[in-house]
Amino acid sequence: MAVKVIEINRDVYAGALTLADETRQRLRDEKTCLINIMASPGAGKTTLLLETISRLPQLNIGVMEADIEAAVDAEKMAAAGVRSIQVHTGGECAMNASMTRQALDEFETADLDLLFLENVGNLVCPAEEDVGAHKSAALLSVPEGDDKPLKYPLMFQVVDAVVITKTDAKAYFDFDEEAVCDRIHRLNPSAAIFFVCAKSGEGVDAWCEWLQSVVTSI
Amino acid sequence: MAVKVIEINRDVYAGALTLADETRQRLRDEKTCLINIMASPGAGKTTLLLETISRLPQLNIGVMEADIEAAVDAEKMAAAGVRSIQVHTGGECAMNASMTRQALDEFETADLDLLFLENVGNLVCPAEEDVGAHKSAALLSVPEGDDKPLKYPLMFQVVDAVVITKTDAKAYFDFDEEAVCDRIHRLNPSAAIFFVCAKSGEGVDAWCEWLQSVVTSI
Repeated sequence: MAVKVIEINRDVYAGALTLADETRQRLRDEKTCLINIMASPGAGKTTLLLETISRLPQLNIGVMEADIEAAVDAEKMAAAGVRSIQVHTGGECAMNASMTRQALDEFETADLDLLFLENVGNLVCPAEEDVGAHKSAALLSVPEGDDKPLKYPLMFQVVDAVVITKTDAKAYFDFDEEAVCDRIHRLNPSAAIFFVCAKSGEGVDAWCEWLQSVVTSI
Repeated sequence: MAVKVIEINRDVYAGALTLADETRQRLRDEKTCLINIMASPGAGKTTLLLETISRLPQLNIGVMEADIEAAVDAEKMAAAGVRSIQVHTGGECAMNASMTRQALDEFETADLDLLFLENVGNLVCPAEEDVGAHKSAALLSVPEGDDKPLKYPLMFQVVDAVVITKTDAKAYFDFDEEAVCDRIHRLNPSAAIFFVCAKSGEGVDAWCEWLQSVVTSI
């Protein structure tokens, strides 16, 4: 499958908040649920999405890959037969509502049940942007450490779900599961928290059930 | 040792480029070498700095810890007897020249040989700011993956050194050392590259020798 790469220009659309709301409504009308996936570089976004998509054959799923440069993630998706598009942010540290809309305008979404936006690897800037998603999730990998909600609180405040990834590395890294849950819930009492290992598949089903319920409810 | 926390206001100083140059000159006059340390959240900046400082007893070293919130890193430094200051960026994704100067104005640097700025955990935004450092280094941890120079090229272009951290996790994660060196050197042919495990101390001496030579040469 060929990978389509879009070079995005900033500020083609004006009025970001309205635009995000419009995007949400347009996708809701199409019955396409948009989920914004955010995390640091290397937290395992692409690997988790590939494993997730393989476990949800009942859903028609697409992925918008956002990166500053390169198309390695969209190529991985395409190699797995997933409909995907690579978005280049031109150096921007996160997708915003305008850039998301430009990407959507290039992507056939009408027949999709679920569309993931895999945002730029960054735990700071993406938390500040309403891209027009229906739900959002942050990934935090075990090697990053259980103190990250203390240092990057906004990200953990704004998301609907937190996925702790690479749980198979627990033996290698000190990571206090109870402490991380406590830190997340102090910032965001209603956040759903999942512990997953995409490699072994452990915990992925619970995350998939959450996604299925989100898709059903929009 | 008590931890000092500074809440920084943006744009107190105008003219960022000049200010960065002034900072560099002022610190050079004091014979204090400022090194800007950048990486993703959880790449191991604090742990590497602690191990580094313990191996350079001949140098008087201080650390400015920059984070959006929390003072956990400055507390770790203080607990180890390292002179440190915590800088809160007020949500900003990176330190800039003005914020760095405000922090320096609160920190006695005259008797320091070496001052580390441990920047906000972010592989994108800090690369765009000239804070006034004499040299800069990016850390990339093995769990993050060897493809990161492809996705975040600016960071790997602008730094003087790249430190690959958590090399003890190689058995757990696919990480091609040759490929990562090749990707970094294509962006930045003169970058010094170090492979270190701060836990075991492996490779830390070579990094320390580089730091010592930088301190001597400013």
